Amino acid sequence: MESKFRFIKALKRQAVDSTPVWMMRQAGRYLPEYRAVREKMGGFLAMCKTPEVACQITLQPLKRFDLDAAIIFSDILTIPDAMGLGLKFQTNEGPYFENPVRTAADINNLVLPDMEQDLGYVMQAVRLVAHELKDKAPLIGFCGSPWTVATYMVEGKSSKQFSVIKAMMYQESALLSALLDKITKASCHYLHAQIAAGVNAVMVFDTWGGILANDCYQPFSLHYMNQIVQYLKSQPQTKDTPILLFTKNGGQYLEKIAQTGCDAIGIDWTVDIKKAKAQVGQSVALQGNLDPCVLYANPKVIEAEVKKIMQVFGQSPGHIFNLGHGIYPDINPEHVQAMIAAVRKYSALQRGNEHEP
Amino acid sequence: MESKFRFIKALKRQAVDSTPVWMMRQAGRYLPEYRAVREKMGGFLAMCKTPEVACQITLQPLKRFDLDAAIIFSDILTIPDAMGLGLKFQTNEGPYFENPVRTAADINNLVLPDMEQDLGYVMQAVRLVAHELKDKAPLIGFCGSPWTVATYMVEGKSSKQFSVIKAMMYQESALLSALLDKITKASCHYLHAQIAAGVNAVMVFDTWGGILANDCYQPFSLHYMNQIVQYLKSQPQTKDTPILLFTKNGGQYLEKIAQTGCDAIGIDWTVDIKKAKAQVGQSVALQGNLDPCVLYANPKVIEAEVKKIMQVFGQSPGHIFNLGHGIYPDINPEHVQAMIAAVRKYSALQRGNEHEP
Repeated sequence: MESKFRFIKALKRQAVDSTPVWMMRQAGRYLPEYRAVREKMGGFLAMCKTPEVACQITLQPLKRFDLDAAIIFSDILTIPDAMGLGLKFQTNEGPYFENPVRTAADINNLVLPDMEQDLGYVMQAVRLVAHELKDKAPLIGFCGSPWTVATYMVEGKSSKQFSVIKAMMYQESALLSALLDKITKASCHYLHAQIAAGVNAVMVFDTWGGILANDCYQPFSLHYMNQIVQYLKSQPQTKDTPILLFTKNGGQYLEKIAQTGCDAIGIDWTVDIKKAKAQVGQSVALQGNLDPCVLYANPKVIEAEVKKIMQVFGQSPGHIFNLGHGIYPDINPEHVQAMIAAVRKYSALQRGNEHEP
Repeated sequence: MESKFRFIKALKRQAVDSTPVWMMRQAGRYLPEYRAVREKMGGFLAMCKTPEVACQITLQPLKRFDLDAAIIFSDILTIPDAMGLGLKFQTNEGPYFENPVRTAADINNLVLPDMEQDLGYVMQAVRLVAHELKDKAPLIGFCGSPWTVATYMVEGKSSKQFSVIKAMMYQESALLSALLDKITKASCHYLHAQIAAGVNAVMVFDTWGGILANDCYQPFSLHYMNQIVQYLKSQPQTKDTPILLFTKNGGQYLEKIAQTGCDAIGIDWTVDIKKAKAQVGQSVALQGNLDPCVLYANPKVIEAEVKKIMQVFGQSPGHIFNLGHGIYPDINPEHVQAMIAAVRKYSALQRGNEHEP
């Protein structure tokens, strides 16, 4: 059964009439209408936890731009928050937990969250957005990778060196594995529930897998993402929903990531997309990979840089245009417009002499 | 002419009696004797600019540990400071420049520093250390890569997104190239002067080359490091001094880096050193690549992780043991001791049945 959405078709490496495009963090601070809501709500977490507001924010970028997907407005730390860690946000300092996880007792005390009771605000937001979007655009659900979520749970906050979790990894790997197992189980249920509530595809954000030593990436990050893929692909209600994996700074692991059986891989701007296509383009779709800093340049430069990426796939299926990372808060929305226009322009040019299905 | 130093021999891929070992930032805050001097001097920059103190600090780790090289205590931002940018350090905030470089006029106004007049404090420190060390250990001189130095000059401080310099790169690349040319010229003279003053090897630290988009790394970072290598290899006084290049997060560029004709490449802990050896080990030496976070673990774990790296080279020449990045300030010095002891242990075991030259 073929989807009506370009984004879903491209994830399945089917032909599309135009390369689908969306942006990580597309519902965010670079939009004045987002900042207005944020000011009224008094902060990020309140916005996430109020389904009507999360729905409104999710839809904001689609009202403004010709985007091919919405992504539910939420955070990768909703799971540990629901496990009782007390997520807070400091102004300009990012997230922190009042009770970081450090000991076997801490890990034992973590309760697997109930998806409707503890994370019902996410499911409710998904239902509201899905209802609003209907046939207009697909909705992406997401979670953090277990490793990435664990870094925040163990460090207690954003980190540069990851000293505490890495000491645990090297010295008490069984302890860390127990934690990663718990996060993985919760993540499986979480994505399953999001799909049941109406998302059309799911993405796992492995923001910090790329800071692991080479021989630690597979056992401490990919292994758990693989379990999530296996779980979703084995369940009747989720087996047809495309899964996107994205390890930032994970360009050297593309073959291993593809072997999980995921449908698509997100790549950052340090990856040579041509090489990536040659490596794994026969088995998965690729999503990316414009340097988010290109959007600081003028529209002419933006168009030239978009063109370079668009030329790699041409009419080959399996490309979703995106930034290589989330959009930065000080980007001019008109430059986003220029990027999307360039994707449309080169999509059309590339298909100019062809009859698309 | 064969050097008496293991470190220099290994850089030239000659056989050694024990794998040489040193650490990036080995003269640093993890040492109580360093902190004592720093407190007395009132800050980092005063230490760099007082040759007697810089000499004392350079030698501190060699008094404590069985290290195979000293590295001159200095900073990659001495060049822009000497160009008139007014380097300052904020407590816990890192370096910043009062006058960042943003316009063509700013770049035109930059004066090429005179090595003895403007950077004489570095040369004097080198002379003092070289005099103290004599035949005991080789001394490493260094500079930042032109791209890395430029990021601080343009951004004005440490950055996460590199918005300003990347906007310049994408939109006004000729302007950025003019800046990179100037830094390159100064860096060539700077390393030449350090060699003349007595350093036995030089290293170029490309801390931020790895954040560039794939197709920007060669033109904006490697191109200028290549010019430095070509310059030093062409001058009678410097042509025999080994050159080490290190791009953090540059694992995918090893072949290109080796093609510069450098003697050795530093690799971070995200690189598979076995693969790196297979790729470029026939033409260059490799330096690295223990995850600096391994030193948070206990000595038993440290030994096991050192062993993994040591096994890759065994008795093959061309390996210098190092961390994959600078040592962190909160590392226990006894753990450094454990790391070095493990390097010695496995060096001896690997050579147990062999007669080394």
